[in-house]
Amino acid sequence: MDHKEALALMEAVRDGRVTPEAAAEKLGETAFEDLGYARVDHSRASRQGAAEVIFGEGKDPEQIRGIVASMMGRKASNILITRLSAEKAEALRGSFPFDSHAEARLAVAAPQEIPLTGSIVVVSAGTSDIAVCEEAALTAEALGSRVTRVYDAGVAGLHRLLAALPQLEEARCIIAVAGMEGALPSVVGGLVSCPVIAVPTSVGYGANLGGLAALLAMLNSCASGVSVVNIDNGFGAGFLAHRINQMEGI
Amino acid sequence: MDHKEALALMEAVRDGRVTPEAAAEKLGETAFEDLGYARVDHSRASRQGAAEVIFGEGKDPEQIRGIVASMMGRKASNILITRLSAEKAEALRGSFPFDSHAEARLAVAAPQEIPLTGSIVVVSAGTSDIAVCEEAALTAEALGSRVTRVYDAGVAGLHRLLAALPQLEEARCIIAVAGMEGALPSVVGGLVSCPVIAVPTSVGYGANLGGLAALLAMLNSCASGVSVVNIDNGFGAGFLAHRINQMEGI
Amino acid sequence: MDHKEALALMEAVRDGRVTPEAAAEKLGETAFEDLGYARVDHSRASRQGAAEVIFGEGKDPEQIRGIVASMMGRKASNILITRLSAEKAEALRGSFPFDSHAEARLAVAAPQEIPLTGSIVVVSAGTSDIAVCEEAALTAEALGSRVTRVYDAGVAGLHRLLAALPQLEEARCIIAVAGMEGALPSVVGGLVSCPVIAVPTSVGYGANLGGLAALLAMLNSCASGVSVVNIDNGFGAGFLAHRINQMEGI
Amino acid sequence: MDHKEALALMEAVRDGRVTPEAAAEKLGETAFEDLGYARVDHSRASRQGAAEVIFGEGKDPEQIRGIVASMMGRKASNILITRLSAEKAEALRGSFPFDSHAEARLAVAAPQEIPLTGSIVVVSAGTSDIAVCEEAALTAEALGSRVTRVYDAGVAGLHRLLAALPQLEEARCIIAVAGMEGALPSVVGGLVSCPVIAVPTSVGYGANLGGLAALLAMLNSCASGVSVVNIDNGFGAGFLAHRINQMEGI
Amino acid sequence: MDHKEALALMEAVRDGRVTPEAAAEKLGETAFEDLGYARVDHSRASRQGAAEVIFGEGKDPEQIRGIVASMMGRKASNILITRLSAEKAEALRGSFPFDSHAEARLAVAAPQEIPLTGSIVVVSAGTSDIAVCEEAALTAEALGSRVTRVYDAGVAGLHRLLAALPQLEEARCIIAVAGMEGALPSVVGGLVSCPVIAVPTSVGYGANLGGLAALLAMLNSCASGVSVVNIDNGFGAGFLAHRINQMEGI
Amino acid sequence: MDHKEALALMEAVRDGRVTPEAAAEKLGETAFEDLGYARVDHSRASRQGAAEVIFGEGKDPEQIRGIVASMMGRKASNILITRLSAEKAEALRGSFPFDSHAEARLAVAAPQEIPLTGSIVVVSAGTSDIAVCEEAALTAEALGSRVTRVYDAGVAGLHRLLAALPQLEEARCIIAVAGMEGALPSVVGGLVSCPVIAVPTSVGYGANLGGLAALLAMLNSCASGVSVVNIDNGFGAGFLAHRINQMEGI
Amino acid sequence: MDHKEALALMEAVRDGRVTPEAAAEKLGETAFEDLGYARVDHSRASRQGAAEVIFGEGKDPEQIRGIVASMMGRKASNILITRLSAEKAEALRGSFPFDSHAEARLAVAAPQEIPLTGSIVVVSAGTSDIAVCEEAALTAEALGSRVTRVYDAGVAGLHRLLAALPQLEEARCIIAVAGMEGALPSVVGGLVSCPVIAVPTSVGYGANLGGLAALLAMLNSCASGVSVVNIDNGFGAGFLAHRINQMEGI
Amino acid sequence: MDHKEALALMEAVRDGRVTPEAAAEKLGETAFEDLGYARVDHSRASRQGAAEVIFGEGKDPEQIRGIVASMMGRKASNILITRLSAEKAEALRGSFPFDSHAEARLAVAAPQEIPLTGSIVVVSAGTSDIAVCEEAALTAEALGSRVTRVYDAGVAGLHRLLAALPQLEEARCIIAVAGMEGALPSVVGGLVSCPVIAVPTSVGYGANLGGLAALLAMLNSCASGVSVVNIDNGFGAGFLAHRINQMEGI
Repeated sequence: MDHKEALALMEAVRDGRVTPEAAAEKLGETAFEDLGYARVDHSRASRQGAAEVIFGEGKDPEQIRGIVASMMGRKASNILITRLSAEKAEALRGSFPFDSHAEARLAVAAPQEIPLTGSIVVVSAGTSDIAVCEEAALTAEALGSRVTRVYDAGVAGLHRLLAALPQLEEARCIIAVAGMEGALPSVVGGLVSCPVIAVPTSVGYGANLGGLAALLAMLNSCASGVSVVNIDNGFGAGFLAHRINQMEGI
Repeated sequence: MDHKEALALMEAVRDGRVTPEAAAEKLGETAFEDLGYARVDHSRASRQGAAEVIFGEGKDPEQIRGIVASMMGRKASNILITRLSAEKAEALRGSFPFDSHAEARLAVAAPQEIPLTGSIVVVSAGTSDIAVCEEAALTAEALGSRVTRVYDAGVAGLHRLLAALPQLEEARCIIAVAGMEGALPSVVGGLVSCPVIAVPTSVGYGANLGGLAALLAMLNSCASGVSVVNIDNGFGAGFLAHRINQMEGI
Repeated sequence: MDHKEALALMEAVRDGRVTPEAAAEKLGETAFEDLGYARVDHSRASRQGAAEVIFGEGKDPEQIRGIVASMMGRKASNILITRLSAEKAEALRGSFPFDSHAEARLAVAAPQEIPLTGSIVVVSAGTSDIAVCEEAALTAEALGSRVTRVYDAGVAGLHRLLAALPQLEEARCIIAVAGMEGALPSVVGGLVSCPVIAVPTSVGYGANLGGLAALLAMLNSCASGVSVVNIDNGFGAGFLAHRINQMEGI
Repeated sequence: MDHKEALALMEAVRDGRVTPEAAAEKLGETAFEDLGYARVDHSRASRQGAAEVIFGEGKDPEQIRGIVASMMGRKASNILITRLSAEKAEALRGSFPFDSHAEARLAVAAPQEIPLTGSIVVVSAGTSDIAVCEEAALTAEALGSRVTRVYDAGVAGLHRLLAALPQLEEARCIIAVAGMEGALPSVVGGLVSCPVIAVPTSVGYGANLGGLAALLAMLNSCASGVSVVNIDNGFGAGFLAHRINQMEGI
Repeated sequence: MDHKEALALMEAVRDGRVTPEAAAEKLGETAFEDLGYARVDHSRASRQGAAEVIFGEGKDPEQIRGIVASMMGRKASNILITRLSAEKAEALRGSFPFDSHAEARLAVAAPQEIPLTGSIVVVSAGTSDIAVCEEAALTAEALGSRVTRVYDAGVAGLHRLLAALPQLEEARCIIAVAGMEGALPSVVGGLVSCPVIAVPTSVGYGANLGGLAALLAMLNSCASGVSVVNIDNGFGAGFLAHRINQMEGI
Repeated sequence: MDHKEALALMEAVRDGRVTPEAAAEKLGETAFEDLGYARVDHSRASRQGAAEVIFGEGKDPEQIRGIVASMMGRKASNILITRLSAEKAEALRGSFPFDSHAEARLAVAAPQEIPLTGSIVVVSAGTSDIAVCEEAALTAEALGSRVTRVYDAGVAGLHRLLAALPQLEEARCIIAVAGMEGALPSVVGGLVSCPVIAVPTSVGYGANLGGLAALLAMLNSCASGVSVVNIDNGFGAGFLAHRINQMEGI
Repeated sequence: MDHKEALALMEAVRDGRVTPEAAAEKLGETAFEDLGYARVDHSRASRQGAAEVIFGEGKDPEQIRGIVASMMGRKASNILITRLSAEKAEALRGSFPFDSHAEARLAVAAPQEIPLTGSIVVVSAGTSDIAVCEEAALTAEALGSRVTRVYDAGVAGLHRLLAALPQLEEARCIIAVAGMEGALPSVVGGLVSCPVIAVPTSVGYGANLGGLAALLAMLNSCASGVSVVNIDNGFGAGFLAHRINQMEGI
Repeated sequence: MDHKEALALMEAVRDGRVTPEAAAEKLGETAFEDLGYARVDHSRASRQGAAEVIFGEGKDPEQIRGIVASMMGRKASNILITRLSAEKAEALRGSFPFDSHAEARLAVAAPQEIPLTGSIVVVSAGTSDIAVCEEAALTAEALGSRVTRVYDAGVAGLHRLLAALPQLEEARCIIAVAGMEGALPSVVGGLVSCPVIAVPTSVGYGANLGGLAALLAMLNSCASGVSVVNIDNGFGAGFLAHRINQMEGI
């Protein structure tokens, strides 16, 4: 329930159309459904511009099924389920319509075609980073953004990155994905004038510390205009990039 | 052996009813049984208000069976066995009476109905935190506290939490369970006037560092009245909450 | 504004005594005063049972003076100011009445005598931990709890701790303060049946990592009924101990 | 030199207006001035939409003076100098025109009035975070964005934050600044539909680990649409927020 | 494309043999082949003296096959594939000619005999470090360096190392490989006058922290002339040692 | 070769009984056998009072077999093989005579009865620490020390430890083994006057960080006379305890 | 009060010479003096073979003076005060007799000549480690052990260490002190047959992490017979070395 | 004493020109001078190609003076003293001839002109890294290498680095110095075919963790041919670069 709806509710109270008790209850309860194991957030779309996203890890198929049913009952579509293992995807097969993307461990329930607009570029340092890239790209596409992929353009062979400069320069938002030393976002950040979202990946070994090395590097980027999300968090980057891509003019 | 018993023992020594040698020995030995692999602490209930709790990890079924037998020999009931894998629970089946809770990896040996009193609320940030929540809730219930569960009320959808405000306000102690950024206890702590026990969970990935991120957040809570237990330590929270819930008035 | 007040407000709206616009504004604004640099939380006492506490670090004397003035304007007393350096305390001298405790870096503004009830014990491992102990003890006393101090009773000389067993056994809540290896709370926790709040201190050097060693030890305590607060957080322990100490019976 | 200029250069080579040797040299050198201790990046504004920013730490006044002179020689204005200590600011006094902001450790050299457009909100958890907030706000203003400040609205007193909901909802980009447990960005992120930039601060002590606790919390935010910059990096947040704020429509 | 080629290209443009558009495109694109999932870097050999090396981890056999095919299409030989699991090696069997080394998880595609020159010594602290040693030795041999192996010569039995002193003294570059406390490179570094490359391994347990202990020790070596590569990075050490070994005189 | 033997060698050189070349070679080579994958240290017993110990992890059965054969060829007995998995022990069955201890992952090759003297006590905090304890106890026994075991005597039930005080007081060296908070060595260290070797174990979860919490606690012990070995390093503690136990008088 | 005294006390109770109440009190209280800020442990010498040691850090001169007075009142001599800053030493001048050692930050109160016996060697890697070495050596000497110093014998110049081999071989216990990579104890441990106590120091910079690098290296020593104390803990090493040095024969 | 000298010594023993006792002593002692606080390593130049380097931190001026005197007594020249504070340099003024470089905290005692040969490039990411760069450059020059400096060529403005490509391509060894995200060595490593030594600096703040972020990034470099030294270790890089630069041909 947003501010305007709250005001409307109070006017209803004033006019006697709603009792105070009902209003107090409604303030807290209308916006979600309590399934016991989950409080499905039905006001998220109006509040945040996109339906609740289901974090698949740590939920069993029965719980996921219940949450999706609750959301589909409210007419939600293109419901994202992230970090969904192949086993769970298989277990859910037939319960409700969904498209699944194995490499990205992502599913889109109640899928619906929507026009893709704007321009996001997802650029990766290496081939091994593609799973995270695809999570980002598919998320942004499910939300309605057009995405260009530039994979394996790491800084050890700069010309591979510079060849994509025309695409980078036309982007409204860039997602730069890298493991190991995580240098890509700094170099990209120095070349363009749009917001850059850096995504560290756990690709590497030893002193990469499961992606912490790349994460720290990105947080310390000497380039301006770069911000960072969690290690391997393709979803988060895709969601935010979509938000930026869809900005209206002032 | 508590202070009063020690005094009584010395009076017995003075009166010649007990020899000094026997007394010295008794001081150390009466209060536990030495099984070789375990020194079962039989004075814990009198000393701490609850029987010894068996940490199931790293013990084989034979050892657990021996410890339970020793305790049941002393008439202990509602004996908690924590971090008990499904395999070990299966192996113990039939050895002694117990209720087991797979999700919480908890068993209650020599189960006995006791009245539940007071009011503890267990509130979780997400559905994936429920296993830890149940360990906490079942522990408190086994010890005799009444527990209310409010699951999936994380801060990204505040209205889901605020809807539970009446329940939170009536609690004598709240257990706030969260993984990822661990923000829930701070928000809860700012809303209520009872003690809040924060339980970080290992739910999340990447920079959650296996729960350290949530743990650190909770230790730095800007809300007053919040203390913290180990990552995923539902048992510890449930035990302490019961202790607080059962406080008598001054 | 608590739940009851919210209900009352809505009844006023229904009855036409308050306009919806005024109500919506009141919902957000009545409970604090915006000084620009601080939003002084005037509803905290009713919500949490104690007035807002001022974190002195990172605030200049002018800001502290403004916040205290705002709170005193609402008749608050025994206002705690924590982590107040000697320099700032000196700078504030004369601005408003306050008692200051240099070692504990604590001040109590608008001090007022209140009866001390219940029983909290603050026990420390060493002499060097006393500053943190005093922050805890003085906080609890300012809030209205009676406090007993047992200092320098670390585990390397157990008899020093065991000599205090009668006091420990009579406590309604114990605050156990230790640096270095942080073993004290585990030993205390094994001896008593009341809640134990563990406070790690930064006392030590080298591998104590500024108190992290003690913190980790306490979080892993094998004794039940122990929870932990931040390193050197005497205030937090004192506040929570007071809350537990003041519990009414079920 | 951007892509178009490179093409133009090659056409000049083709037409014989420029020799290949001169072109090869120009490709590398025209875009910066080499002062020995610094290679001042004169193409940054055209490449990135804003002039080079001077990181004041670790540079002596003489070096800063030289860099500013080089930039002013190219007609740059509103040149940002970050992390400039009071001593260095004093030493620079008179060398060139600049506005300095002591709390934010920021100076704006060759200051020039520009219209402020759009809407950025900087919201802080506490009063002690204000220095970082001001660095962010002043950076965005120097670049041309309109900024609203909401300070001391941390989650331990939610109503203080909710009172600012109208302002938050109207923002095109929000900068959420917090130390300690760093929960603010998650709560803000759950309330709004614009991009949220989280800035962890080093405010706190002990297990805050110099701001790492807040940083980790923010990276693990359960709210969507949140990204993170380095600890205490107000500048980075302000720069990125301006970039997002100034987005044109698709 | 190196500097000379760039100059040649521009002369071609000037002379009208190449259009500016074609030149601009060529600058970016001729040097790699875009397979979608990989941008195979065909200029690396000319730029760096060795063909691109394929990091096998995180790539599926199909991708590896594609990259090798692209490189073999350009006549590359002795193509290194590192961190290649036995399963993937098996899956690739028959796709193209290669030698594989199971222990070192290394394969050399399109193998070709080349003369081995110079002198590199690979010395290990223990038997358990041999896998990493072999990755280093085989890499250097594939590139054309002669390698001597001295295994299990750790510092707890110095005479085993001193017995190899003649070999160490004749080396042009030494690779010192050790897990646990990582002391070997310091001792070796104190005995010789050639560059020493230290390779920490993950051999050990507990406080070895997966090789971090050895890594840190090596970075802090009190011996001069020692530098360090990533944990278990035998490839990196072998590549660099080859580069040093092949140095020409001034 | 010890100092005396070196002197003798030089006298032989002087007297013409040995050529200088042979002497130089002998200095380095006589004391070990080079198997290619291992340089078996045959002088260790004379140098260090005990034969080389074989670290079983990371060696394949063939390598272990070769090393044992080399040592048995030099008449070594009671050869310790540590961290030997059940699989490898099985694979070695029949290759040479050995006793194996599954729980302690330890084998004693070429076993030989020797008299046990002196007095070492191994005391553990919990039942789950027994595997590490047994590695320590069996090591010391294989070397010739008499060992007393006191298991599950953690600080949460002090009386269990105090009951063993007579045994502790008679020990010449104590090995104190604990996971979780690692408090046991501090308490033991405060009770006795012999050297105490602290062994942290990885028993626990969450903030135990795989044993680091216990390790740090032990390093910061406030008791004097305590030193520490690596996490789970039962062997190291048993070896050192034996060395101390066997000390002769001054 | 040791076990024998406890038995005697109980016999006195049985014989009516002591009341039970007095005995219970005596059990706890006779062995220390409570100064409020310190519980001076008067039974430590009988329990542990050496008087209590005063940790000077975090105690003010007044507190140190009080503790020393209490101990001197019980006839203690050679009382060690560690980590005593020059300022505090100066402030204590005249309060009681003491020898102070500025570099080692150590004082010996109530100094008394005692014969030095046995043989401890303190060996350091570098000149910068001498302060820690002296703390160790002076501690052992104050307790009655003879100490030989071998300074600046680090592994980067092995011959410097090997020259001291005769001294090392005659030691009953060796203290090996090193910062940076901390390799010295491993090399020493491989050369001798007596216990080796490793002391990491904070000497170094960068990735030495304040001594953690050396600490970790020492904990992972591949040499047997080595144990470790806290960073810069010369006192702990000296105390333990003395204990080992003074061992009687079996 | 190198291998040849040892052989010569033994021939002298055989021929009766030297007694065995004298030889044994000479083996250990001729190669260093024992000053008590330092064992000055006089054989280092013959062993390692450069005289001992004095680590100035943690040594007092008197000690430094003594070591230099000992070395000058053996005719050493261009003796490096690293990490020498301005205060110590001042205190040493007049004791012996030396050149000092304040910014690099480096002094060269007994300075002597030597011809500079070969080609090392020191390239830095920023102006704030110059102190470390100069330590590297001056070290290499003192040892006899020619050095080119390219400062402030970080990856956020790639053209500044690419403009130095001709210099980079002509280097025999490159030292790449960077703080913050430490991306420079990866980019440089991808452009050249000579060895690259990466030096992380502590420049930055917050999540740079005192240089650890840059260190980790460099260790994980995706470019081949890169190795790493300790944070801020300009000396180590300069020493090693000189060694590589001076390599003779095979």
